[in-house]
Amino acid sequence: MNGAQSLVRTLVGCGVEVCFMNPGTSEMHFVATLDAVPEMRGVLALFEGVATGAADGYGRMAGRPAATLLHLGPGLGNGVANLHNARRARTAIVNVVGDHATYHKKFDAPLESDIEAIARNVSPGFVRWGTTPESLGADALDAYRAALGPPGQVATIVVPADVSWGPGGVVAPPPVLPERAPLDVAQTMVVADVLRSGEPAALLLGNGALDARGIEWASRVAHASGARLYCETFPARIRRGAGIAAVERIAYLGEMAAAQLEGLRHLILVDAKAPVSFFAYPGRPSWLVPDDCEVHVLSGPADDAGSALEALGAELCAGPAPVAEPGRPRLPTGALTPAAVAETIGALMPEHAIVSDESNTSGLFSAQATAGCPPHDWLYLTGGAIGQGLPVAVGAAVACPDRPVLALQADGSALYTLQSWWTMAREGLDVTTVLFNNHSYAILNMELQRVGTEGAGDRARDMLDLSNPDIDYSALARGLGLSAWRSTNAEEFAGHLAEALATPGPSLVEAVMPKHPRPG
Amino acid sequence: MNGAQSLVRTLVGCGVEVCFMNPGTSEMHFVATLDAVPEMRGVLALFEGVATGAADGYGRMAGRPAATLLHLGPGLGNGVANLHNARRARTAIVNVVGDHATYHKKFDAPLESDIEAIARNVSPGFVRWGTTPESLGADALDAYRAALGPPGQVATIVVPADVSWGPGGVVAPPPVLPERAPLDVAQTMVVADVLRSGEPAALLLGNGALDARGIEWASRVAHASGARLYCETFPARIRRGAGIAAVERIAYLGEMAAAQLEGLRHLILVDAKAPVSFFAYPGRPSWLVPDDCEVHVLSGPADDAGSALEALGAELCAGPAPVAEPGRPRLPTGALTPAAVAETIGALMPEHAIVSDESNTSGLFSAQATAGCPPHDWLYLTGGAIGQGLPVAVGAAVACPDRPVLALQADGSALYTLQSWWTMAREGLDVTTVLFNNHSYAILNMELQRVGTEGAGDRARDMLDLSNPDIDYSALARGLGLSAWRSTNAEEFAGHLAEALATPGPSLVEAVMPKHPRPG
Repeated sequence: MNGAQSLVRTLVGCGVEVCFMNPGTSEMHFVATLDAVPEMRGVLALFEGVATGAADGYGRMAGRPAATLLHLGPGLGNGVANLHNARRARTAIVNVVGDHATYHKKFDAPLESDIEAIARNVSPGFVRWGTTPESLGADALDAYRAALGPPGQVATIVVPADVSWGPGGVVAPPPVLPERAPLDVAQTMVVADVLRSGEPAALLLGNGALDARGIEWASRVAHASGARLYCETFPARIRRGAGIAAVERIAYLGEMAAAQLEGLRHLILVDAKAPVSFFAYPGRPSWLVPDDCEVHVLSGPADDAGSALEALGAELCAGPAPVAEPGRPRLPTGALTPAAVAETIGALMPEHAIVSDESNTSGLFSAQATAGCPPHDWLYLTGGAIGQGLPVAVGAAVACPDRPVLALQADGSALYTLQSWWTMAREGLDVTTVLFNNHSYAILNMELQRVGTEGAGDRARDMLDLSNPDIDYSALARGLGLSAWRSTNAEEFAGHLAEALATPGPSLVEAVMPKHPRPG
Repeated sequence: MNGAQSLVRTLVGCGVEVCFMNPGTSEMHFVATLDAVPEMRGVLALFEGVATGAADGYGRMAGRPAATLLHLGPGLGNGVANLHNARRARTAIVNVVGDHATYHKKFDAPLESDIEAIARNVSPGFVRWGTTPESLGADALDAYRAALGPPGQVATIVVPADVSWGPGGVVAPPPVLPERAPLDVAQTMVVADVLRSGEPAALLLGNGALDARGIEWASRVAHASGARLYCETFPARIRRGAGIAAVERIAYLGEMAAAQLEGLRHLILVDAKAPVSFFAYPGRPSWLVPDDCEVHVLSGPADDAGSALEALGAELCAGPAPVAEPGRPRLPTGALTPAAVAETIGALMPEHAIVSDESNTSGLFSAQATAGCPPHDWLYLTGGAIGQGLPVAVGAAVACPDRPVLALQADGSALYTLQSWWTMAREGLDVTTVLFNNHSYAILNMELQRVGTEGAGDRARDMLDLSNPDIDYSALARGLGLSAWRSTNAEEFAGHLAEALATPGPSLVEAVMPKHPRPG
């Protein structure tokens, strides 16, 4: 057995059964293994950022890691942005990067570069270099364990070509996974006392606390104690919809977040970070917690947030809390505004949906319009590196083939990883992309004002404009194998979205909105 | 004056007048500067790899650096692949990366990451962190000088947002550029003696030796001494065509390169590296120079290769050498094979053309078919990181607005940076893309055999296949604003290419070739 086979067989033994890949020559032995090890499914991406984002989406929904397969330093570089988002989501990923044969590196061939430097950016906790075929299986096992955590992370394993093709590979046995650290009962009591004090308090939920169980107990605690209930601005995955307590997100804009936090004396973090401004702005604070607000940690990234919340709820004798009532908006008519798009989505969202949301400014109304829809999972842009939404939709659809996936996608961000559409078509994934075409990087037009630039005029605003020439997203999607519709009013959009949702496989509905007006 | 203005004004003072950008919030003050400093031209890219590749193409043709503007670690990551190619091309680039405000970094906001780690991969020689608005102009000057070399390099300057927006910026004075190191006369004599010895010898030319002057003197030396004349496999830029001596490239495949070098006793490097195999293959050598061949260095990356060759030619009293005769292939008819595409290009290539070549396996016949065309410049994929061809075409067209640019583009590679087409449309660049659609990563089908994989079957070959679904490149190009034609036989292709070349602005001709046959 060669090294590549021992790597792949070890991963399969760990339950890693999908590899999102964009391979090159140095990874051909891994690729060849797909025939010998049919338990590993290869999913081809046309660009590495699609592969890494898909691995993120898969991990968020499957709860176990996918592998990637990337080609040397440049391939890893192309995958960095979505590995950054995965790092912020704390998604478990076994990130496999091929390298030149060990003896070839000294010749500084054209593709030689410092892979480890790049890997450290996205895998600060685990970068392993495969050294021999005999040890590669054990390396893969270590990478899997590191990826899984908790907390989850991107674990990178660099595999030189000769370590792949050399004989003597040994499959590592399936891992014995560590138990979670026991609940910190003393801290539960501290937090319970804070909540009993009657002083203004809020629970802030992060990734680990946003499944059905975490939300149920958090909402009970909030309801029983009078605490406010928030979640992080961009959680990796949140359960929401009818029958589930609504959790308000901390706002993206610092001044709005400050308003949410105003008057608090206690902020209780449940696998969350205390809110900071997404960017810095002249004269505005980065740290958004009020000065006289004390920050408490109920549970951290490695802890079991659901158990911590349940224990807290039990301590507070917290009974059931109000949940979102079933209900959908009526189908709107007339102009195709962001609100009309959101209402149409709320009216038509299928059951059991997964929503990959990179709608940015255009998505402002989506949360409210879908609050009473059937229960669904919502995936956010965790790390701010745009081009996440479509790849995450790919991975979510691979992880959950029986659930419909909705990708709510801003136009500018779509263009970083539009190659995702082809992988959706090739794999027959049931993803419906709603493309918000507002002809601009709308968020940057807002930020241009907010950062206090002076003298910005037409030449600056040209750099934020996508209307010259206008981009035909439907043509792009069709060129990559999708069914696509272009809608310019609310009635059209409703008809097209209904048709797209009823069409098996991937499709796109382009919501063409009015151009962003230019000042002056 | 704020820091951003001092940065941009300093660069303009150095002659850096184009910035290829994909900015975000932390770079808004740089963007705003475009109105105050109209000498700096901003060129928007929809993806960072387009911006960095365009800066590479610009630098290769303009002989002076462009700037880039990228957004934090993820934006730099997206630009890594083409900065890798630029590093291999030794193109001078001032690579500007925005960062969070200095005081904001400690909060670990979502987009925070280790920028320097990534930057070291592509800018091993120069990464500078801007620290104050007052010193940013001087930092920019240092970056410019570092970029220029010689040898040229990617010089990265990281600019925190508050260093951009803070007051007190100082424009640094234009630089006094260092003189080149004087010619190494002793080494010239050593090499002249080698060539006079009558033992089998070859000159191997790299980037600095492949302009008109370098080629003229190298060909004279070769002709006078009987030495063979080669250039590196993937030079950054080579002057060729009628009236210019033909220089044979070292072959991509190691066994073919070994055949070219067979019997040599002396290999003379002129700003070149001794040939090594692009990848390692089991049982085949990485080092391709024959065992009993001595390697001599006439001039290195920091030297003036043209002067060194001229001095060597003078020492050898080398008179004029044969040059390529004018002549073009006849227009082919019938099936649209790679050879037919090459002959059509040879028949129709306009005068003064610049060719950006990422045609990979499909381009095998291009060099011969264009050898007698009017003089032109040919730009290769220097670092092996695919997705270079279209961005380099963008940059070359911006650098040379009066010259037609031909992008010879393989299908699989096109899809990494197809967003380039939109920038071509927006800027009205005269780039004609010839898209070789062979429905596969053809080179990987070859490599899959060559690396000695056993047991690779349909599941492996699926990962190299682009035909399920087939991609409509013409639709993609039209969606991004280009005129596009789809050709399925030689006559159609000739008509479409002639029309595309006659059409102002960017256009695409898709050469649809037969599907790559599958073994078995």
